[in-house]
Amino acid sequence: MGHPDSLNSSDQLFMGIDGGGSSCRAVLVTADLDVLATGSAGPANPYHSFEGTIGSLLAASQSALETAGLSVETCKEIRVGAGLAGVNLPAVFQKMAAWQHPFKAFHLTTDMEIACLGAHAGRDGAVMIAGTGSSGCAVVNGHVSVVGAYGYPFADTGSGAWIGLQGIRAVLSARDGLGIETTLTPVLEQALGTTGNDIVERLMDSGTKDFAEHAKFVFAAAKAGDAVAVEILKEAATYLDGLAQRLMRFGTDRLSFIGGLSELLTEWLPESTAARISKPVMSPEMGACMFALRESGVDSAAARCH
Amino acid sequence: MGHPDSLNSSDQLFMGIDGGGSSCRAVLVTADLDVLATGSAGPANPYHSFEGTIGSLLAASQSALETAGLSVETCKEIRVGAGLAGVNLPAVFQKMAAWQHPFKAFHLTTDMEIACLGAHAGRDGAVMIAGTGSSGCAVVNGHVSVVGAYGYPFADTGSGAWIGLQGIRAVLSARDGLGIETTLTPVLEQALGTTGNDIVERLMDSGTKDFAEHAKFVFAAAKAGDAVAVEILKEAATYLDGLAQRLMRFGTDRLSFIGGLSELLTEWLPESTAARISKPVMSPEMGACMFALRESGVDSAAARCH
Repeated sequence: MGHPDSLNSSDQLFMGIDGGGSSCRAVLVTADLDVLATGSAGPANPYHSFEGTIGSLLAASQSALETAGLSVETCKEIRVGAGLAGVNLPAVFQKMAAWQHPFKAFHLTTDMEIACLGAHAGRDGAVMIAGTGSSGCAVVNGHVSVVGAYGYPFADTGSGAWIGLQGIRAVLSARDGLGIETTLTPVLEQALGTTGNDIVERLMDSGTKDFAEHAKFVFAAAKAGDAVAVEILKEAATYLDGLAQRLMRFGTDRLSFIGGLSELLTEWLPESTAARISKPVMSPEMGACMFALRESGVDSAAARCH
Repeated sequence: MGHPDSLNSSDQLFMGIDGGGSSCRAVLVTADLDVLATGSAGPANPYHSFEGTIGSLLAASQSALETAGLSVETCKEIRVGAGLAGVNLPAVFQKMAAWQHPFKAFHLTTDMEIACLGAHAGRDGAVMIAGTGSSGCAVVNGHVSVVGAYGYPFADTGSGAWIGLQGIRAVLSARDGLGIETTLTPVLEQALGTTGNDIVERLMDSGTKDFAEHAKFVFAAAKAGDAVAVEILKEAATYLDGLAQRLMRFGTDRLSFIGGLSELLTEWLPESTAARISKPVMSPEMGACMFALRESGVDSAAARCH
């Protein structure tokens, strides 16, 4: 990291923020994308909580400023690029964009676009995302295309929440004598510390994050040969393969696969698809910095050198 | 209906109550299952609202008593059988069973058991239920077996909520260029009065009842030959056929298919399965009366004459 002593008032500072349902990460950079400091805070999904998101954005950015040895007031000099979950919904975007922020500028876009910009260092490319939810994004010739991202229960096939929920459904179906027996049953019973109808009672107030917690059991069972778990992951992979093909039809061959389940799921993709996947060049928050630079009319160093 | 004037203090009165997520129906009968009066009230699903359920149970029973020309205090003389949604969950059952009710007796069971008792007039048999949710119940030699009934999102395949949600998912998938085009798209857009991402925004706070509202569009589209809608209903029918087979494996050939979507879905079942379905002999609330009679040690007239 650079040192704040090397900065003077003529230096332009930029901050990239990646905000999602579980946390928010900020990175403070120069116009050459040299990283000065990072910061992090809690959830920043304005669909779930507008006030919470603002709190997290301020906390993460202040944390980065403090780490860089800069005063909180410096935020007035900083151009921020923020990619947030939830703002693909027009009303959420509008509310967030109308925020009376304390920065020099606040450029807002989706978490998917900054992930895509980061993964391909600002060049054309696509990202497929599989974490708690699933989605995809392609940036080609400056045009951003989003696939999925409607969230549970509208479009989340292949996501952690979907895989975990399918596992739970399979256990209940086997219990009823409708579906075939699965080794997921004792695993789920142990995880929940209960059996029978109590399983459902225990799960009643579960949300997508809770379901996603159970995805790991499905991967483990499939690895051990459980036919039910294998079927679930095959269906997930079929969907994600279709998503990958769709993204590349936007006009790019560069595809990254990110999110908490991307590594585990890559093993299940057809080899021809898996072979096309490249490691992200940079993080989403660095993508957010590039977004801030672009929206501020500054050529990004990364864009120049790639 | 009989007339209350024919009653004297030695007459035993029974009330059957069928309580579900949208309403609650009560029927007041003699020990011979002669109907004296009926009453109805709002939702009675103690999983969703314990206080609301109690209010609905009291309102429906008082309404029946008033219609029969009996005072509200008469409830002290009445043995109630109540079949309620939600009480298949042990904790919900326990809470409801501990209710300090004003009746002479309050016998509690699931909405599924009373539906089954009513459908087969107290004899062995099974019911398959497809309304907002889906489930099945068999009563054989006094033994009650429940299949499914875990509710959304754990086990509701073939239900209205599931069919409607699959329709919505198909529209979004087609919109993304992942799934094939479907005539459900203009239908859903018209129903919601919006297009594009606004569809999802409009649906964000939807619950199972809202999803179930969209099931009718899927049936209409399938009838008109829409391939996507046909696939959804085929999957629903495959599940329900499996459910029907499972229920009959409990040891009965008598199967009724009830719930708001049963008629529409019967057309999609294999002919061999559809042919086995018999019309319910009596209503669920009459089944609840039989349950009250049985739990009170009184031979039901229906059981005697069938």
